[in-house]
Amino acid sequence: MKYQMSEFPGMKNHLLLQALQGEEVRRPPVWMMRQAGRYLPEYMKLREKYSFFERVETPALAAEITMQPVRRFAPDAAIIFSDILVVPQALGSEVTMEEGEGPRILNPVRSAKHANSISMPDVEDRLHYVMEALTITRNALNGDAALIGFAGAPWTLLCYMVEGRGSKDFSMAKAFCYNHPDAAEHLLKVISDTTIRYLKAQVAAGAQAVQVFDSWSGLLSPEDFRRFSFPWLKEISDSLAADAPVILYAKGSWYALEALKQRTRASAIGIDWTISPEYARQATRYEITLQGNLDPSVLMAPVPEIVKQTRRMIERFGIQRYIANLGHGITPNVPPDHAKAFFDTVKDFTA
Amino acid sequence: MKYQMSEFPGMKNHLLLQALQGEEVRRPPVWMMRQAGRYLPEYMKLREKYSFFERVETPALAAEITMQPVRRFAPDAAIIFSDILVVPQALGSEVTMEEGEGPRILNPVRSAKHANSISMPDVEDRLHYVMEALTITRNALNGDAALIGFAGAPWTLLCYMVEGRGSKDFSMAKAFCYNHPDAAEHLLKVISDTTIRYLKAQVAAGAQAVQVFDSWSGLLSPEDFRRFSFPWLKEISDSLAADAPVILYAKGSWYALEALKQRTRASAIGIDWTISPEYARQATRYEITLQGNLDPSVLMAPVPEIVKQTRRMIERFGIQRYIANLGHGITPNVPPDHAKAFFDTVKDFTA
Repeated sequence: MKYQMSEFPGMKNHLLLQALQGEEVRRPPVWMMRQAGRYLPEYMKLREKYSFFERVETPALAAEITMQPVRRFAPDAAIIFSDILVVPQALGSEVTMEEGEGPRILNPVRSAKHANSISMPDVEDRLHYVMEALTITRNALNGDAALIGFAGAPWTLLCYMVEGRGSKDFSMAKAFCYNHPDAAEHLLKVISDTTIRYLKAQVAAGAQAVQVFDSWSGLLSPEDFRRFSFPWLKEISDSLAADAPVILYAKGSWYALEALKQRTRASAIGIDWTISPEYARQATRYEITLQGNLDPSVLMAPVPEIVKQTRRMIERFGIQRYIANLGHGITPNVPPDHAKAFFDTVKDFTA
Repeated sequence: MKYQMSEFPGMKNHLLLQALQGEEVRRPPVWMMRQAGRYLPEYMKLREKYSFFERVETPALAAEITMQPVRRFAPDAAIIFSDILVVPQALGSEVTMEEGEGPRILNPVRSAKHANSISMPDVEDRLHYVMEALTITRNALNGDAALIGFAGAPWTLLCYMVEGRGSKDFSMAKAFCYNHPDAAEHLLKVISDTTIRYLKAQVAAGAQAVQVFDSWSGLLSPEDFRRFSFPWLKEISDSLAADAPVILYAKGSWYALEALKQRTRASAIGIDWTISPEYARQATRYEITLQGNLDPSVLMAPVPEIVKQTRRMIERFGIQRYIANLGHGITPNVPPDHAKAFFDTVKDFTA
C-alpha cells in the first residue's frame, strides 16, 4: 500500500503554520516536545501491551499514541509518535530498546571500513510505517491541529551509531570523528541524504512541518559544531525549505543561534531552557520564529507556579513569531494536570 | 593528630599562583581536572587493592594518588584526590560507590522536614582525613607544583543529596526546590556554611588555591541559576577571598560568566569547552584569569591533533591571566601519552 498523498481534511486551526510563516496571530500556538509519552496513563496502558517497536512500527498504534494528548489537551500541533533511531535502523543499525534502559545498538560503527560501507537505503520502503502513521494521524486530527514530522540530526544519529548507547559525553563518537574524519564525513552525509528523503516523504504523507532534533549538538565545542553538526542542519533545512517549514532544535548550542538564523533556510529555531528569551531574540535579530523554552522540571512545581512561569515566558518571547513549548521533552514523572496547566495558560493568554 | 599548619617547603614553581594573581608569566601554568584518575595504570593498581572510600579516607593513599600524575607529567598544580560527596557525607548522607556505577545516596532528602533537620557538622573533625592528605601532599610536592583544594558547589551537592544519584536532568532536585523553597534555601545555606569552613580548613592544611565545582549548574535556566546557584558561589568565594585564590567552575553556565566576574571575589573562572575563548574573554572583560577549556574528547585524537588544538587554545585565550586545562575532567579511556602531549605542549609554548 502506498501512503495516501491526496486530500486531507481542511485546516480549522492555522496557528502553528501562521507562526512558522511569521504571520500575525492572536496568541502563540502551543505544543509540547514528547507530548505523547510516559506521563500519560493512557500511553502507559498501551506500553504494557505492546513493545516499543510494536508501538513505533504499527501505524494505527503510532497514530493512536499521537492522538492521546490531542484529545486531552487540544494542542495546536501534534508531533508524530516515533523515534529518531528509525533512521539508523534503516541504515543497518540493530537497535534494541529495553524499557527504562534506553536504546542499545548491537553493531556500533567502530571502524572507518564499517562507516564507509553504509549507504542510503530505500527510505520510503524501509520506513513506510512512519508515512502511514502520518497519513492516519493527519486525517484523525481533522484540521484541529497541525501535524509535525521529525528526524534526528546527523550528528546526533552518528553519536548513537558509533557509541552504541546513550552517553554523558559521547567521547567514543567524538574520538571516531577525530581519528577517521573522512569516514565520519561519509557517514554524516549518508545520514543527511537519508534524512532529507525521509522528511520529504513525511511531508508527502501529511506532515505540515518538520523538526530536526540535534539532541547532542550541545556536547560539541563551537568549532566542532561548525564542523560536524552545522553543515548538515543547513543541508537538511535548505533541502526541505520548499516542501515544509523546518524547525531546527540544536539542544545546548546557544552559540549557534545566529548562524542557524542567518545561514540556513529554517522557519523556526527551538530554544532550550538554558537560553534566556532575551538572548535568543537578540542573537536571532528578532527576525525568526522561536520555539520553547520552559524547563520541563518546572512542570513538577505547584500549578500556580507553572501558570506564572508560563505567562512570563510568553511575555519575554512576545506573542508574534513564537511557538510556546518546553525547552526539552516532558519528563515521565509530570502529573497530566500539570501539563494541562501549561497548555491552558498559553491558550488563555492575552497580552 | 592535628594537621600540620606550620612550615611547608618553599615554592619553586610560582606559575599557578602568579596566574591567579594576574601577574605576568612566561607561559601559562597547566594542570588537568581529574588528572589523578582512572586513565593512569598506577591508579588502577591502587583501585584494585582499595575501595573508593579507602582511597579517599586514607590520607597517605589520597596523597599518593594525587602525586601519581605529578611524577609522570610535572604539572604546575596538583589537585587533591578526594570527592565532592564527602561534604554530603558529613551532612548525614549515606553514600555508596559502586565501581563504574557512580554514587548512590541511600537516604536522599525528599521532605522539607528532612532538609530542615540538617545542620552544620564539626567539619574539621569529620573531614580531618582530607586535611591530613593535603598536608602530606603539600610536603611531598616540595614546592614543585601548587596544591589545589576543592569542594562541590551547594547547588550541585543539593542535586545529589535530593536525587540520590546521578541524573540527566536532576528533575527531582529541581522539583524539591520548587515545592519546598524554604527548605531548599535552608539546605543550600547549610551546605554553603559547611563548605566555607571546609575550604578554610583545607587552606590551613596546605591548599594554596581552591576550586568550587558546580558540575550541574548548567542544568538550570539563567533565572534558576540566579536563585539556586549564584548566591552560594558568591558567598563561598567572597568568604574565602582573604584566605586563598578561588576558582569558580560553573559547568554549562555560559550565561553566568559576566556575573561571576563582576559580582564575586573569585580569582579565576573555569571555562568549559562549549564556550569559545573569545566569548569567555569578552564576557569577563579581559579582566580576570580564565581556566580551561579543551574538550576532554580531543585527548582521544591523534597526538599531532592534540598538539595543534592545545596550541590554538592558548593562542586564543592568550598567555596572561590564563591557566591551561581541560574544559572538564579527563575521561578514563585516554592513553597517558596523549595526556602527556597536552602537558608538554603547554610547557613548551612560546608566543
